[in-house]
Amino acid sequence: MRFHKIINDPVYGFITIDDELIYKITSHPYYQRLRRIHQMAMAHLVYPGAVHTRLHHSLGAYHLMRSALHELLLKGVDITPEEQQAAKIAILLHDIGHGPFSHALEHVLAEHLRHEELSLMLIKELNREFDGKLQMALDIFTNVYPKKFLNQLISSQLDVDRMDYLTRDSFFTGVNEGVIAYDRILKMLTVHNGELMVEEKGIYSIEKFLIARRLMYWQVYLHKTVLSAEQMLQRIIKRAKQISAECTGPLNNFINQPIADVTLAQFCSIDDYDVMMAIKQWCNHYDVVLSTLCKGIIDRNLLKVKYFSEPVAKSLLIEKADATKKQFNLSDEEVKWLVFSGEASSSTYNFENEHIHILFKDGTIKDITEVDNALINENLRGKVKKYYICYPR
Amino acid sequence: MRFHKIINDPVYGFITIDDELIYKITSHPYYQRLRRIHQMAMAHLVYPGAVHTRLHHSLGAYHLMRSALHELLLKGVDITPEEQQAAKIAILLHDIGHGPFSHALEHVLAEHLRHEELSLMLIKELNREFDGKLQMALDIFTNVYPKKFLNQLISSQLDVDRMDYLTRDSFFTGVNEGVIAYDRILKMLTVHNGELMVEEKGIYSIEKFLIARRLMYWQVYLHKTVLSAEQMLQRIIKRAKQISAECTGPLNNFINQPIADVTLAQFCSIDDYDVMMAIKQWCNHYDVVLSTLCKGIIDRNLLKVKYFSEPVAKSLLIEKADATKKQFNLSDEEVKWLVFSGEASSSTYNFENEHIHILFKDGTIKDITEVDNALINENLRGKVKKYYICYPR
Amino acid sequence: MRFHKIINDPVYGFITIDDELIYKITSHPYYQRLRRIHQMAMAHLVYPGAVHTRLHHSLGAYHLMRSALHELLLKGVDITPEEQQAAKIAILLHDIGHGPFSHALEHVLAEHLRHEELSLMLIKELNREFDGKLQMALDIFTNVYPKKFLNQLISSQLDVDRMDYLTRDSFFTGVNEGVIAYDRILKMLTVHNGELMVEEKGIYSIEKFLIARRLMYWQVYLHKTVLSAEQMLQRIIKRAKQISAECTGPLNNFINQPIADVTLAQFCSIDDYDVMMAIKQWCNHYDVVLSTLCKGIIDRNLLKVKYFSEPVAKSLLIEKADATKKQFNLSDEEVKWLVFSGEASSSTYNFENEHIHILFKDGTIKDITEVDNALINENLRGKVKKYYICYPR
Amino acid sequence: MRFHKIINDPVYGFITIDDELIYKITSHPYYQRLRRIHQMAMAHLVYPGAVHTRLHHSLGAYHLMRSALHELLLKGVDITPEEQQAAKIAILLHDIGHGPFSHALEHVLAEHLRHEELSLMLIKELNREFDGKLQMALDIFTNVYPKKFLNQLISSQLDVDRMDYLTRDSFFTGVNEGVIAYDRILKMLTVHNGELMVEEKGIYSIEKFLIARRLMYWQVYLHKTVLSAEQMLQRIIKRAKQISAECTGPLNNFINQPIADVTLAQFCSIDDYDVMMAIKQWCNHYDVVLSTLCKGIIDRNLLKVKYFSEPVAKSLLIEKADATKKQFNLSDEEVKWLVFSGEASSSTYNFENEHIHILFKDGTIKDITEVDNALINENLRGKVKKYYICYPR
Repeated sequence: MRFHKIINDPVYGFITIDDELIYKITSHPYYQRLRRIHQMAMAHLVYPGAVHTRLHHSLGAYHLMRSALHELLLKGVDITPEEQQAAKIAILLHDIGHGPFSHALEHVLAEHLRHEELSLMLIKELNREFDGKLQMALDIFTNVYPKKFLNQLISSQLDVDRMDYLTRDSFFTGVNEGVIAYDRILKMLTVHNGELMVEEKGIYSIEKFLIARRLMYWQVYLHKTVLSAEQMLQRIIKRAKQISAECTGPLNNFINQPIADVTLAQFCSIDDYDVMMAIKQWCNHYDVVLSTLCKGIIDRNLLKVKYFSEPVAKSLLIEKADATKKQFNLSDEEVKWLVFSGEASSSTYNFENEHIHILFKDGTIKDITEVDNALINENLRGKVKKYYICYPR
Repeated sequence: MRFHKIINDPVYGFITIDDELIYKITSHPYYQRLRRIHQMAMAHLVYPGAVHTRLHHSLGAYHLMRSALHELLLKGVDITPEEQQAAKIAILLHDIGHGPFSHALEHVLAEHLRHEELSLMLIKELNREFDGKLQMALDIFTNVYPKKFLNQLISSQLDVDRMDYLTRDSFFTGVNEGVIAYDRILKMLTVHNGELMVEEKGIYSIEKFLIARRLMYWQVYLHKTVLSAEQMLQRIIKRAKQISAECTGPLNNFINQPIADVTLAQFCSIDDYDVMMAIKQWCNHYDVVLSTLCKGIIDRNLLKVKYFSEPVAKSLLIEKADATKKQFNLSDEEVKWLVFSGEASSSTYNFENEHIHILFKDGTIKDITEVDNALINENLRGKVKKYYICYPR
Repeated sequence: MRFHKIINDPVYGFITIDDELIYKITSHPYYQRLRRIHQMAMAHLVYPGAVHTRLHHSLGAYHLMRSALHELLLKGVDITPEEQQAAKIAILLHDIGHGPFSHALEHVLAEHLRHEELSLMLIKELNREFDGKLQMALDIFTNVYPKKFLNQLISSQLDVDRMDYLTRDSFFTGVNEGVIAYDRILKMLTVHNGELMVEEKGIYSIEKFLIARRLMYWQVYLHKTVLSAEQMLQRIIKRAKQISAECTGPLNNFINQPIADVTLAQFCSIDDYDVMMAIKQWCNHYDVVLSTLCKGIIDRNLLKVKYFSEPVAKSLLIEKADATKKQFNLSDEEVKWLVFSGEASSSTYNFENEHIHILFKDGTIKDITEVDNALINENLRGKVKKYYICYPR
Repeated sequence: MRFHKIINDPVYGFITIDDELIYKITSHPYYQRLRRIHQMAMAHLVYPGAVHTRLHHSLGAYHLMRSALHELLLKGVDITPEEQQAAKIAILLHDIGHGPFSHALEHVLAEHLRHEELSLMLIKELNREFDGKLQMALDIFTNVYPKKFLNQLISSQLDVDRMDYLTRDSFFTGVNEGVIAYDRILKMLTVHNGELMVEEKGIYSIEKFLIARRLMYWQVYLHKTVLSAEQMLQRIIKRAKQISAECTGPLNNFINQPIADVTLAQFCSIDDYDVMMAIKQWCNHYDVVLSTLCKGIIDRNLLKVKYFSEPVAKSLLIEKADATKKQFNLSDEEVKWLVFSGEASSSTYNFENEHIHILFKDGTIKDITEVDNALINENLRGKVKKYYICYPR
């Protein structure tokens, strides 16, 4: 009897792992560590259900990859069993380089490293441990593998990563603005000239998918209270570094040490638990800035946020800073940690690269923005940008 | 113990009727008749689940009205118990004037009557039967009642009618492009200056709602096979009238009699069953046009449809007509019933009237198309129009 | 590119047909006819969503068969492509012998024929039309094919027929008592000694499945108002036969002719539409019994039903009969059509045959009723029987 | 405009808080702390979605209480606004006494305190802080309030606590064996003689609810891998206490100090994060037992579990102990931490107290186990007990 494990997933029903190597990879401590990293950082402070993990998202993206490959095979696309395995491994590990609180602390904890680079380093490391069996996955991940569509399934404007996170984040937040027809999209995928494309009948599902992503950004990912909590989180780490606040455990290396000295193993030893424990400890720190921010996160007493379509007026910043200085008895330097402005942006479709191509029955190929009566049109070119101010209530 | 009935609804869970008058109205034969009219005409030939009825939609819209009123009351909007009852009755009866196959045969069976006029006639008739107790509902329906927002809940770009049909049609077709956050929209409704408006926080849900409607039009309501079946249905009735085809039962009055002679009671005596039975009978009619169209519907052997962005080329029409004439041995007049072209259109948002207004926290009011970074913008002004040709395969 | 059609199904997402023969069978008029037969007869008078069709159920059961075969193949069970095709055809056609209103009118319209026999006759007929290509499906259907588990998937206490109807009927009624873990059950299926069995880990899902079926019987299929409507429907046909009531169309053959003369083609020419049209006609019939029953169905003015755990007391029957005779001015013979008693029953598990076997890891085989702490135990042996009386309100 | 907050909940759509006192209670640090306690302890190691929190469950139970009160009010039950507020507060705080990993570590961290007692202490403390405004909630919670049904909604075999946890745990695990018709049950609730009862029509929903709970116990709560992880978790704490293992932060007080000295504030300062951080620290502890158990949890390398219907044979225990001693080089005392047996049990219905009463239309009252054809019968009396052994794989 073949190797066969199933995992209950409230989103897709069951996720099947029927390959022993893949199962071993998911059992590796580096992978299991993703259980301790929230997929949506601090979003659960607004959406209490949004406590799902990076591991769960990664398994979900793997499941969609499995379905996508199945559909493409049914359509006669040539994908060898080795390539199938490699593509599944590549998606499973695409986010393995995420650190505590994922995007929210990227560039903050390990300043010069993007999660994609860390993912690459970790995949290489796993490839060593698994005697080179991940080489093809690595080639697909780095897009040097000849069949480009395999990489496009992992990393493009139509990848299974996005399909899973929109679907999953919608599910766990309960915000149905992000619901997409992922099953329909998968059935509409095709490969033409070695590139991933979408059949004509899938146009509306793709339009829905792009709009859903846009709406999820503003409704959820950049929701003002989520933004506030994640800004506070970042400032906690930055302030701790600035004042060399001590914390227990390996996180201390990231706070009080030149980052260059941090090893991959050390990186993998920290997760959301380390950061939250430090925050709990710092609630009583003598530094008012640090302890205020930390107590704010722990007791969900968050900075107030206002969004504007224009950059925040200096006068408003000054007004709020003055009030806060008095309230907390802070210096000019200190108040900047609690009263600040910034900008948030998202784009609906990237017109420059990684185009989504529609393949028509007559063989014509058009960009999704160029089909007749395109919903995703010039008007949606350019990022939507909003400006915000944060300050204590 | 108060009057209290609950009805299982797979879409909303339970629909509660806790008003005896409303229950009596739903028990009236004119209302029960809606059980025998498909909500989506012939769409079930493509989406086999789409067999739900006008009665079910009408109960669903009533349920959303009940929720909407509940939310508005929580916000302190002044709505008397009588007005609540009247608004519920008005939405319950808003579609009571639909005849067999609803929109698909509107203007075909009873040529000069729109379903809204028939609804009005029937509500007046019911008002007589119920001793004038439906007068306020009638006033809301005809928009002479002072509180305009009650009519807007029934008939505007943001009415509960649309919210229910998008939700319900999505549910029964299984097409999730039409899923909307109806519960969120209801919670975001408010009344300002006597008009129905949406709170600022509801912008994305409204954008999603308008896009969902657009996508449902092209994915479902104007799906080419649905269009084909509904065109065939219309042509069956028109041809039957032209050649005075006999059928049994009261439908014959509509086929073989000046429509002016038809009474309201006669109108209410026919439904989808009469039309389908006539179609079954006519499958063996000597008129080739009529029997071909009828057999096509019964055996789901539908005319082929192609959509174009430009009007259909005459040469293509001629080519298809010639082939069909030979295939079925038809005259020039006859072939026009089986080979024909036309146009289909839908608009995302009507810029001219019934605007959707967003009420901002600072008291500003903006049209949904004029908010910052509006998704529904000038670019989506104007109808999307497509041209089609139908012909036997 | 391979043959490939997908059908939207709100229950399972998409149903795939990737075999041209199967597609041709589903396109046959005998199959398309199932679109015009309600899956749940008159249940929609209580559960307005329950208007789904036999065709939809049959496609759903086909989908589950496809999934079941897929899972068994993954586990290394030997099933040839021909056998897969045959099993899918067999389930697709398992209910093709259903007539108007399915079970509700079985033995009433065509008195001596069970739907299974009619299915057999129709499969044989289709086998002729398709040049013998349905022979293996026929052998599986009649259980003469050596691999018994294929027949068990179609017809046993654990067949995909039941799995689909519980799931689908729950979905469309909105009654979640019938929700089962069909996807989990399918993953737990296995074949041992040529018989269909369930892996140990599936015990709870099977218990849930059997309980769900029991609850659906009493909550839905034998709901007192559903029972009333279906009893009325049966009596309408029986009374029409008794008094030789005329109706238009081929249904007349079934009402006014020795049934032995009816051909298979005639049988296939009638459906729910014919019966409902006759009922509409008979609303004005001079026979008070017939017209009362017919108007009751059309206007949803149903006989009142009471359930008892003991046979209905004669005195109660007499009391109700007397009152009804006066109310409608009826003879002793006539009143029996409107006031009557009967019994309804269902069994949770059939202890006599078609056992559900659990295969333990150590190779032991146990009946689901004999596992440790079995939920389905002796106590649930025997049918649950209830007695009812019907009479006008 | 009235106070009005809504919270997105993927399970129920939206949870409304329209009472300022209730909102303030949910904002209190003692309540916010529940965000950092998993509802299902270690179940997420088997069901990756099961990462929802005590706070989320508590909000869900509050939502069901709100619905239950609404339904009872519609039926004319006398419940004053103050009582409604009090009942909502009582359910909101019913679990506030849960410590890290809830049930899994109850009696292990704070040995002599059940979570109900801690909840009581904390409600009293909050009552002090809120100037006595929680007194009625306290009276309902302690069941000294005259209207008994309010307490029954909080704590009985039919309380909203169970309804929420079954529904929520099913949702987040994706195990549909636990799906119940909570909305139907709520609509069937009634009050008779001051006691909470269920209308006759709700019998099947109650049977489903009790069976669902039974199945969830064995499928999920006592799933062998979940059991293993939670046994390991308990042993980690016990071993740490035994060997006085140090950890950072306030958890140390619970490990290395007589529990009597722990204050309520200290109790509230620890949560899942403290325990997990200690476990991460102890992965490198010199004590092999402690470090093995800790690494097992962190890397999801869990003890193997086997269930038996009879107590575990001593010979098997000895065999496994011997093998483990060799493998890890352990003493007799040490091996008992890694190789051990025990029993797990659950009961479907407690026949002794807190009966579920069915109120029939004729005024009769019956226990759910005594209705005709009761599914929950004598046969299900008594606990289902299983015996297990755990040992390293």
